[in-house]
Amino acid sequence: MSKPLILVSNDDGITSKGIRILVSAMKKLGEVVVVAPDSPQSGMGHAITIGETLRLSSEDIFEDVQAYKSSGTPADCVKLAKHHVLKGRTPDLVVSGINHGSNTSISVLYSGTMSAAIEGALEGLPSIGFSLCDYSSNADFSHVEEWVEKIALQVLKNGIAKGIALNVNFPPKRNEDIKGIKICRQAEAKWQEEFDERLDPNGRNYFWMAGNFVNFDKGEDNDEWAIANNYISIVPCQYDLTAHHAISQINKDWDWDNL
Amino acid sequence: MSKPLILVSNDDGITSKGIRILVSAMKKLGEVVVVAPDSPQSGMGHAITIGETLRLSSEDIFEDVQAYKSSGTPADCVKLAKHHVLKGRTPDLVVSGINHGSNTSISVLYSGTMSAAIEGALEGLPSIGFSLCDYSSNADFSHVEEWVEKIALQVLKNGIAKGIALNVNFPPKRNEDIKGIKICRQAEAKWQEEFDERLDPNGRNYFWMAGNFVNFDKGEDNDEWAIANNYISIVPCQYDLTAHHAISQINKDWDWDNL
Repeated sequence: MSKPLILVSNDDGITSKGIRILVSAMKKLGEVVVVAPDSPQSGMGHAITIGETLRLSSEDIFEDVQAYKSSGTPADCVKLAKHHVLKGRTPDLVVSGINHGSNTSISVLYSGTMSAAIEGALEGLPSIGFSLCDYSSNADFSHVEEWVEKIALQVLKNGIAKGIALNVNFPPKRNEDIKGIKICRQAEAKWQEEFDERLDPNGRNYFWMAGNFVNFDKGEDNDEWAIANNYISIVPCQYDLTAHHAISQINKDWDWDNL
Repeated sequence: MSKPLILVSNDDGITSKGIRILVSAMKKLGEVVVVAPDSPQSGMGHAITIGETLRLSSEDIFEDVQAYKSSGTPADCVKLAKHHVLKGRTPDLVVSGINHGSNTSISVLYSGTMSAAIEGALEGLPSIGFSLCDYSSNADFSHVEEWVEKIALQVLKNGIAKGIALNVNFPPKRNEDIKGIKICRQAEAKWQEEFDERLDPNGRNYFWMAGNFVNFDKGEDNDEWAIANNYISIVPCQYDLTAHHAISQINKDWDWDNL
């Protein structure tokens, strides 16, 4: 078997610590090509660049790895890789991350890391987003590299069902080893925003978005539970958003004769 | 019953034609508050503004309607409305649009219009995104206002199941009346991107993202079929992305002893 072709992207930008570890792990498994944003894109969700131009240039920062930085979003980077950089070659795997911060539960919707993985899935490619649930500025990634490699190897061996990308979150480094992997559902939780209103030097008001993560979910089969209990969580995420169960319900409930 | 409180947002910006029609329709049903981006935000997906500040200011452009423009994304606008502008009042309905352009099928992932609606659903509020499948610069919205009002009324009467927002798309204006409404699933389709590479006046290359929409779906129960056949499509969209069926499959397939 020839070496697998692995496309790497992220949302923290091409110079971030997480992508260095991801590239290091993927080099053990195959030929790596990187296309990643030239600056941090956290919170970009599944944004794409339309109505504006995109830049793309090669960047010699990973040893023996073809790498490009782009002015675009994570989703743009995967599109640029697939339809321009790779010149007709098809990746065997798309990986994104390792994000510096959690993408569990509802954060998946806001996640640039996962938008790159979902963009890969849209292209029919096995795709994984990796995130470390540690927001501290000196977050320790040392306990995750071997797991990143193992999970990628499972996906290279077994593939992923059509229409699905994996959302992998790692617990922060603790004094005990990671207990293992749990295949999970997305926890039912939300961000409870608060807006911190301030005045600029000209007396005009502006806001910082802040807030707390609130977990409503009491189950033990979800990603929040897994991380809290020192397991790696893997949520298979689909891009078909249809709530199929709701279709017949709406057809039954909506009465056009008595509106 | 007191007048329902209706929050209006969009992604084309507060001065767009679509939001004017949406406000006009909603004023017939309740008290309207608008919080919308100060400039177009198409393709923003579920982006939110973190690490940067937000502006918010009142804007007197809709008669008898409290309105605010924000520097943020559509998702930011709904968060600002819920947690700041409305000062503890809870909307009975969140509506977004009317987007100038289609948000059927996979476009829902890239849609700022739908991110505002999904943000409403995350807050537990009945929420709808409206889009007109017509990209022409002089798109005619005249055939949709009565339908927008009717659909909003159904939702005010019947609510929407928890965790779901409605993605409503209208066919372009044709020489025949709209045939009715179909509650649909999201069509299986994708954007086939092409990147148009050019040189700037300094000789550096840049790209425009372009491409074609490719519909693989042969079914007659999806949103693309509905629009092509002059029906309004309504897809109930959920923010739980878990592919529940894949969880047991992965547990079965992944063999850690023979990696």
